[in-house]
Amino acid sequence: MSMQAHTDVKYVYDHEDLILQEVLARYQLTADPRLREIMLSLIRHLHSFAREVKLTWPEWERGMAFLSKAAEWNSPQRNEFIALSDVIGLTMQVVAASQPKPPGATLPTLIGPFFVPAAPTFKNGTDISNGASGEPLHVSGRVLDTQKRPVADALIDVWQSDDRGLYDVQDEKGVWGRGRVKSQSDGGFTFWSVMPTAYPAPNDGAIGELIESTTRRLWRPAHLHFSISASGLDSLVTHIFVHGSKYLDEDVAFGVRPALVADFVAHEPGRAPDGKIMDRSFRTLDYDFILTRKGA
Amino acid sequence: MSMQAHTDVKYVYDHEDLILQEVLARYQLTADPRLREIMLSLIRHLHSFAREVKLTWPEWERGMAFLSKAAEWNSPQRNEFIALSDVIGLTMQVVAASQPKPPGATLPTLIGPFFVPAAPTFKNGTDISNGASGEPLHVSGRVLDTQKRPVADALIDVWQSDDRGLYDVQDEKGVWGRGRVKSQSDGGFTFWSVMPTAYPAPNDGAIGELIESTTRRLWRPAHLHFSISASGLDSLVTHIFVHGSKYLDEDVAFGVRPALVADFVAHEPGRAPDGKIMDRSFRTLDYDFILTRKGA
Repeated sequence: MSMQAHTDVKYVYDHEDLILQEVLARYQLTADPRLREIMLSLIRHLHSFAREVKLTWPEWERGMAFLSKAAEWNSPQRNEFIALSDVIGLTMQVVAASQPKPPGATLPTLIGPFFVPAAPTFKNGTDISNGASGEPLHVSGRVLDTQKRPVADALIDVWQSDDRGLYDVQDEKGVWGRGRVKSQSDGGFTFWSVMPTAYPAPNDGAIGELIESTTRRLWRPAHLHFSISASGLDSLVTHIFVHGSKYLDEDVAFGVRPALVADFVAHEPGRAPDGKIMDRSFRTLDYDFILTRKGA
Repeated sequence: MSMQAHTDVKYVYDHEDLILQEVLARYQLTADPRLREIMLSLIRHLHSFAREVKLTWPEWERGMAFLSKAAEWNSPQRNEFIALSDVIGLTMQVVAASQPKPPGATLPTLIGPFFVPAAPTFKNGTDISNGASGEPLHVSGRVLDTQKRPVADALIDVWQSDDRGLYDVQDEKGVWGRGRVKSQSDGGFTFWSVMPTAYPAPNDGAIGELIESTTRRLWRPAHLHFSISASGLDSLVTHIFVHGSKYLDEDVAFGVRPALVADFVAHEPGRAPDGKIMDRSFRTLDYDFILTRKGA
């Protein structure tokens, strides 16, 4: 009956503190100092979480099954882990913490799953909707630095949902509601498109299971996506949200920031800002993006 | 130039604290109180982690890519997320925190990826190795409660690696080194098998990437797996580790607990405990498992 403990065994994982200590000591071996810092903090917080709630074995098993379900739904077209990060606000936490902005600079928000690199480029004033359905929308604005100096030649990517709440990558009709324009010498840019509308996150897969069993708040309010880059300036990824849209106060991805909510002004049929005569009602958005200088 | 903030927008996620507050307020909507408690704690800790290390956008992207890689390697035969939980010690943290044991009771450890339900049942004294290669091993012991009373009819599942460091589920030779015996009226049980050996965790996939870039400690020390259940007693999942095995002080899964390290006594050829005459050297393990009463 050799029941005695072997006291010559060096490491003892006999209770929770010692387990954590041992794991942290092991990950101190990580050669890269930044990865070491990240792993030590992540391990400490995950262990603290398990201890704080006294996570049970069946709950741990449920957590593992949940991650396996996320894995099954994960694909190059749909990163379920990014979606999970979005719906627990972790993405926005990283955006906010890693991209602090001085007063007056336009705030960033999440990029979301629908960005496509190298979208078609248009001249200012072009209609980028390419047949997308929705109320016509004229967008104008300027790209400026924090001293309000115009930024010429900024590359402005825009992408958006149509009045069904879908993006072009979600149907089979090619590229629509997506394109690039460049700012002019005065920093100004303009394009036509259609009004974006609110849409729900997918209600299937692991995201659907999480939201259904927790907040039951699936929707994103109406917004236009912008990604703006210019020489010498920090790139900016953000949305402009439609003031008055439903779900502004319950964005599933926690992406709404008050300064990013803007008036999409309603107009009766008549003359648009670019002189075009509209035979139906339309909207206008005029918004200036204030970018920060690199290293400032 | 509609640059003013819309102060009628109710929720403001303008800096890190407010983002976390808003996310926590949202998850307060969770109907199930236990799930609510778990989500609030998990969200708080993940946000704290991101803030503590000032996680950058490229680092967040790397984390998301890492989880996608784990998803690609995940399968019913290999749960990559359980493996990740194991190698950051989270599994053992949950085992230790959720299954506290009084002094004298046998401690649990992780179950690992190789348990198979409904393994073949053997009479006491049978060789369960079924041709597995390795030094012969005679195992004996008793199942007792914490008052040292014998526990009859306990179902004892055992599974193990052979001298290549493989489990039966990792080759094509059917069931070997795996089986069930029942404790007798005095709580005693015996079986023959072969010595288990140390083996490395898979060095591919997400686990391989994590270990390679951090601890570089891939191995599990030699052990027998036991899962013991009996009427009126708490089930026990544990290992018995081979005293003197390599890697006892650096188990990749942090599963070693000193009371679970036992002598696998070496014997010259001759008479075994069950009277069998052995023409080669062999080992013996004698270990009593002390189970706790349900609800005690």
